[in-house]
Amino acid sequence: MKKNNEFIPACPIPIQQYPQIMLSHGGGGKMMHQLIEKMFVETFKNPLLDQRHDAAVLSCSSEKIAFTTDSYVINPLFFPGGNIGQLAVCGTVNDLAMAGACPKYLSVGFVLEEGLPVETLWQIVRDMQATALECGVQIVTGDTKVVDRGKADKIFINTAGIGILEYTLEINPREVREGDAVIVSGDVGRHGMAVMAVREGLSFESDIESDVAPLSGLIHDILSEGIHVHCLRDLTRGGLASALNEISQACQCGIHIEEAAIPVEENVHGACEMLGFDPIYVACEGRFAAFVPSEEVQKTLDVMRGHPSGQGACVIGEVRKGSAGVVTMKSKIGVDRIVDMLSGEQLPRIC
Amino acid sequence: MKKNNEFIPACPIPIQQYPQIMLSHGGGGKMMHQLIEKMFVETFKNPLLDQRHDAAVLSCSSEKIAFTTDSYVINPLFFPGGNIGQLAVCGTVNDLAMAGACPKYLSVGFVLEEGLPVETLWQIVRDMQATALECGVQIVTGDTKVVDRGKADKIFINTAGIGILEYTLEINPREVREGDAVIVSGDVGRHGMAVMAVREGLSFESDIESDVAPLSGLIHDILSEGIHVHCLRDLTRGGLASALNEISQACQCGIHIEEAAIPVEENVHGACEMLGFDPIYVACEGRFAAFVPSEEVQKTLDVMRGHPSGQGACVIGEVRKGSAGVVTMKSKIGVDRIVDMLSGEQLPRIC
Repeated sequence: MKKNNEFIPACPIPIQQYPQIMLSHGGGGKMMHQLIEKMFVETFKNPLLDQRHDAAVLSCSSEKIAFTTDSYVINPLFFPGGNIGQLAVCGTVNDLAMAGACPKYLSVGFVLEEGLPVETLWQIVRDMQATALECGVQIVTGDTKVVDRGKADKIFINTAGIGILEYTLEINPREVREGDAVIVSGDVGRHGMAVMAVREGLSFESDIESDVAPLSGLIHDILSEGIHVHCLRDLTRGGLASALNEISQACQCGIHIEEAAIPVEENVHGACEMLGFDPIYVACEGRFAAFVPSEEVQKTLDVMRGHPSGQGACVIGEVRKGSAGVVTMKSKIGVDRIVDMLSGEQLPRIC
Repeated sequence: MKKNNEFIPACPIPIQQYPQIMLSHGGGGKMMHQLIEKMFVETFKNPLLDQRHDAAVLSCSSEKIAFTTDSYVINPLFFPGGNIGQLAVCGTVNDLAMAGACPKYLSVGFVLEEGLPVETLWQIVRDMQATALECGVQIVTGDTKVVDRGKADKIFINTAGIGILEYTLEINPREVREGDAVIVSGDVGRHGMAVMAVREGLSFESDIESDVAPLSGLIHDILSEGIHVHCLRDLTRGGLASALNEISQACQCGIHIEEAAIPVEENVHGACEMLGFDPIYVACEGRFAAFVPSEEVQKTLDVMRGHPSGQGACVIGEVRKGSAGVVTMKSKIGVDRIVDMLSGEQLPRIC
């Protein structure tokens, strides 16, 4: 998500007077009221949020809705290609999209550490709203808590989201079946390595940018074309390998992929080698795997490649009968190996 | 919320092996999988959660839904009368009830600090489910993040909730009008003082118990009786005084209350005097204010007093024309004074 040279509005609360978040910003009194009214309500502005009630009352035009939540604790807050605010909107929007839903409404829960620069919060809030506009979602309800210095890490954000199911298609790991093609929407591992590179203070010949992006537009294109997608899964924590393992267990089939077919950018490859990571376990924030019937592969690829978020779409493998819950990969030197789920922690706090 | 001597099930993940939460419990691999499957999915068990998808797909039987969120950062996690888990369910259920909605679905986002005893998490999760059952809500989707030691305070919980609007009645601060009676559902200030007493290491002659409780049953009783409630507001952060100030601003009327009419338990009064608090600014977690037309006051009180959560219901004041946004109170010695919003922080981290 690249930024143009844009006009940056000034922080709407007086930062000369209170440059940092204080406990009183979460106390239910005047300070909190000002923060909520001037920064959050003004920036996220919409009639639903403006109800100023304990809960937002929403119209629901569909009999089926999707509901999801994620907390974001990424460190550092700002990384090449994005920040925690964009991530908090994209992540939840993408989870809704993976269920085949059209994202509509978000809630936001901020946990702020005393001492957080108000200017930092303002930058995050602004980018949340810009990303929400890009995704066509409204932030309709929220909550703010402030904890004492040393009891959180600057800012944690939770978003929950509601989406509308416009299609009757059942999109679910259990729908995956033998013969389905496994498609990835683009190169993998970029988000995790972008964050790690900043954290480790590494600089590569060409900087690695996170792939963080909303996927709802691309999913909408696929579904509106009438493609019979069986399952969609974004490649977040645990990366491609963990996503395939989870789906393989749920559908009780085997999944076989080819290492040579998995797109990984050269600088990501280099960073992975340097830090000892395998790119198929590294989180993306703007990539997904789609499981589609083999006869609809070409149509799916055409639709995906026609969208900016799916230009690098390609087939990386297929679903096979038997060996339920087992993911295998043909390596670049032609040897088959089992791709297991990680047992430990590879990359803490990358989302 | 009192507990009986109940059967306490053993922790479903092996605590001998891993007695504390580790970073790998949030890493997207096997450890996280075990925590989610064995502890969360097993305990919150329901078919919607069991979809194991990025988002839960829900039926929506109503054209209007309510949506809300709250993060819970209370310190200490356990206090007389409840814990953070019960609070996280009740708080969000109550916010939905205050919009006149029947609470249906919750999401849960855990932020866990490395080193949190797994047994503590298990106790909280169990109590969340018990409270959810009591409220008739299902926990249908969730997320878990683990942050390194010293970067959070044991556990933070976010819940978001969806409720169904069964009645067409408009319940909203802007519906409040001149002549409305202000009713509180019971004694105020207990939750905040119960937490403060533990935190300050005070022991009173009789221990103060938090009033934390779900209010959705009581609100359902009021609405199903056809009472034309104009507004409902739970008395959480900032207490009764802040709630009345917010509503007075939204409806552009004045609100006048009588100090002598506000129920405050004697031990709460004593604790407030000792610690220098005014009980009308102290948070409750199981109390609300209702604004009802004067001709329906008796009926409302009858219904409220017939429910365990509303036995102490009483009228404490009325809405007056003019002096928009101003709350006045006749003190016990007969003098009128303005009840302002707090400007600073009185009680950090009580919810």
